[in-house]
Amino acid sequence: MGVVMSNVETKDTVTLREEAVAGNGLIDRRALLRSALFSAGIAAASAGNARADDSVGVDAPDWMKTPGKPFSAYGTPSKWQEKVQRIIANPPGRPGTGVSRTPLHLLEGTITPAGLHFERHHNGVPDIDPARHELFIHGMVKRPLAFSLETLMRYPMETRIRFVECAGNSGAFSAAQPPQITAGELNGLISCSEWTGVRLATLLGEAEVNKEAKWVIAEGADAAAMSRSIPLVKCMDDAMIALYQNGEAIRPEQGFPMRLLLPGFEGNMNVKWLRRLNVTDAPVDARDETSHYTELMPNGKARQFMFLQGAKSALLKPSLGMTMKGPGLYEVSGLAWSGAGRISKVEISADGGQTWALALLTDPVLSKTLTRFRLAWKWDGRPSTLMSRATDETGSTQPTRASWIAQYAPGQGYHFNGIQSWSIEADGTVKNVYA
Amino acid sequence: MGVVMSNVETKDTVTLREEAVAGNGLIDRRALLRSALFSAGIAAASAGNARADDSVGVDAPDWMKTPGKPFSAYGTPSKWQEKVQRIIANPPGRPGTGVSRTPLHLLEGTITPAGLHFERHHNGVPDIDPARHELFIHGMVKRPLAFSLETLMRYPMETRIRFVECAGNSGAFSAAQPPQITAGELNGLISCSEWTGVRLATLLGEAEVNKEAKWVIAEGADAAAMSRSIPLVKCMDDAMIALYQNGEAIRPEQGFPMRLLLPGFEGNMNVKWLRRLNVTDAPVDARDETSHYTELMPNGKARQFMFLQGAKSALLKPSLGMTMKGPGLYEVSGLAWSGAGRISKVEISADGGQTWALALLTDPVLSKTLTRFRLAWKWDGRPSTLMSRATDETGSTQPTRASWIAQYAPGQGYHFNGIQSWSIEADGTVKNVYA
Repeated sequence: MGVVMSNVETKDTVTLREEAVAGNGLIDRRALLRSALFSAGIAAASAGNARADDSVGVDAPDWMKTPGKPFSAYGTPSKWQEKVQRIIANPPGRPGTGVSRTPLHLLEGTITPAGLHFERHHNGVPDIDPARHELFIHGMVKRPLAFSLETLMRYPMETRIRFVECAGNSGAFSAAQPPQITAGELNGLISCSEWTGVRLATLLGEAEVNKEAKWVIAEGADAAAMSRSIPLVKCMDDAMIALYQNGEAIRPEQGFPMRLLLPGFEGNMNVKWLRRLNVTDAPVDARDETSHYTELMPNGKARQFMFLQGAKSALLKPSLGMTMKGPGLYEVSGLAWSGAGRISKVEISADGGQTWALALLTDPVLSKTLTRFRLAWKWDGRPSTLMSRATDETGSTQPTRASWIAQYAPGQGYHFNGIQSWSIEADGTVKNVYA
Repeated sequence: MGVVMSNVETKDTVTLREEAVAGNGLIDRRALLRSALFSAGIAAASAGNARADDSVGVDAPDWMKTPGKPFSAYGTPSKWQEKVQRIIANPPGRPGTGVSRTPLHLLEGTITPAGLHFERHHNGVPDIDPARHELFIHGMVKRPLAFSLETLMRYPMETRIRFVECAGNSGAFSAAQPPQITAGELNGLISCSEWTGVRLATLLGEAEVNKEAKWVIAEGADAAAMSRSIPLVKCMDDAMIALYQNGEAIRPEQGFPMRLLLPGFEGNMNVKWLRRLNVTDAPVDARDETSHYTELMPNGKARQFMFLQGAKSALLKPSLGMTMKGPGLYEVSGLAWSGAGRISKVEISADGGQTWALALLTDPVLSKTLTRFRLAWKWDGRPSTLMSRATDETGSTQPTRASWIAQYAPGQGYHFNGIQSWSIEADGTVKNVYA
């Protein structure tokens, strides 16, 4: 799909001034929808707008002259979309370790197609025979239990749209200089799916957890035996054993046949290929909560067990790699989310943070879900700095990058949720800047 | 995934009686979630429940002993899911004509993965070069316009989760004898996606529609030049030129690079590979609104232009092909929808329609979207008849099959939304019955 931004010229400047919602051209989105503006755009015959046409497409294109392709049992994207792929990054010689990122800047809406859900693996994707997989609940419980997939399928289920975000997402913003990479490369360790499965509290209730228990150690059935310590209170709240993703069985890269889903908690804790839940009274200090996923502080100590993903947003349109085609009206859009609940507002600035306007949030705004925001912008063609700032229902707001950075030791890159900034150059190119 | 239904035994019959919500074992869903019932189930050691286990999975499975598979640019389902496919039905020698159905009975939640979205083609799937495709708006407009995909991508967008249902969905219920086929084969001409695109009203506003205009003739760029007449009032309401489906570019089988989306209207009108919108003052009596998609009445006349898909539901769990494993607690679930708006309630009967209980609806309940419903049922092992009945926010309720059938000439199968019934036999098998 195109990576060139809209420009809809208008002579209707008087009305526009009346509908300004913040400095440097941010206007009420209704102005962008009003036909008068688009018509004016056509009248100005600016490049890229709808073309006046009275031929009514008399010449049928080639593909109308021959029968199309037959039905397929499982569809795939158009061949014209082959560049819309996950962005893989892993060390040489270690094919099963690293990440692949969701190309957020090439997508729209809020749901991530399962085939483009980000990946983070520690020793590759295991090929699990679902008929032989079992989930064990043991430790400080009255009744140790083993659940086959077939058994779990019989339990009452629930369905929730929730994001999963890697703790290391957007860590590149901790670099001294702003990385000139796409919004997907910067922020693509987040994806959003409709998950269906069994509430973990139901299974723990069946196992009868001891009163002294405080933690649950989750272990995956991958070759890394990926393990994390999880507060019992989260397991008894909204934790789910997810069996389905966007309607179908969960994909291998997301944990087939089952994963732990801890809405709002860092991705690494949402243990994939879930095999064991060991109920304990203390955390286990697993490799992935000591060598990784801790926050190094200025005094040289590390903060451990910082689970919650903060309020955050990413401006995707425009973003690096796209080119603005001259002054005019544009739709600015992106995604916002918070591990603490619903997004209550997203503000946009077109003047580097001096003034802010409220963006429109796409309904429904759900808890711990990606929320699409949109706003109209009349770019005057001069260099400008665009920013987005999310606030969640708890009142938590994104900090500036500078104040986020100041909390930590240099280079600490986990849990970045600072405000991001795109500079629009006079020639229409877009750059990542620290504003 | 398994196709065997839950049975969670319980001795807690006194409590159960107190929580009955309708006859023949329908109980409050909270009872199914209460651990005491599951514990009782374990104590009774009935087949298929969680297995008491204190080995805590000491033996690591094979897939933990070897590195897993590497990252992939675009993921696919697990090889263990190869039976979860669209169900293709087309005439011999006509590979591009017919349908493929979504296997609803093998899915969960409400979103349909794009690869499993139902298909209805009249001359195959065209392979459209998006750079060469144009959408024309012409006819009774002040300003005929042509839009390239690149141009449309610049317009303000909106995102909506909406179902699309073929007018012929569930037409098999018009047969004299109940077809013994799966719920997907019966009802799989419906799918639900998150669609993102440009509101059609914005484009029609730009073209400036004449005051005398009443209809819009939509034409697809397939080899059938599939055409339908659409009331202008719908086009100015919630109609969308959809460009994205579940976050990524719309799939070829659903209209790449663009389709018309008319939420709640019969699928055929949601013209795929959309090429032309001809604004007129009268419908055109296209092939697909005269030879197809009309309702044949008892007097031999046909009702034309019956656009709205009625309030409807399909019970998926249990359904034909699954086997109940003896008396006990089960979760009953399925999908409900209405072309007129939100589902306001879904009722379940376990006694052939004598008594009804309210099912739980999965949040959020959105307009013109698939809504998942769930209820707990304690099956006593005797033959029973399960039914579901949806009511939408306009107050419209599913009729019985008999009263639906009585409206039409024999064999008329469009727009079936009668109540469906599954008979549970004493041996646990499930049959389609006309109750």
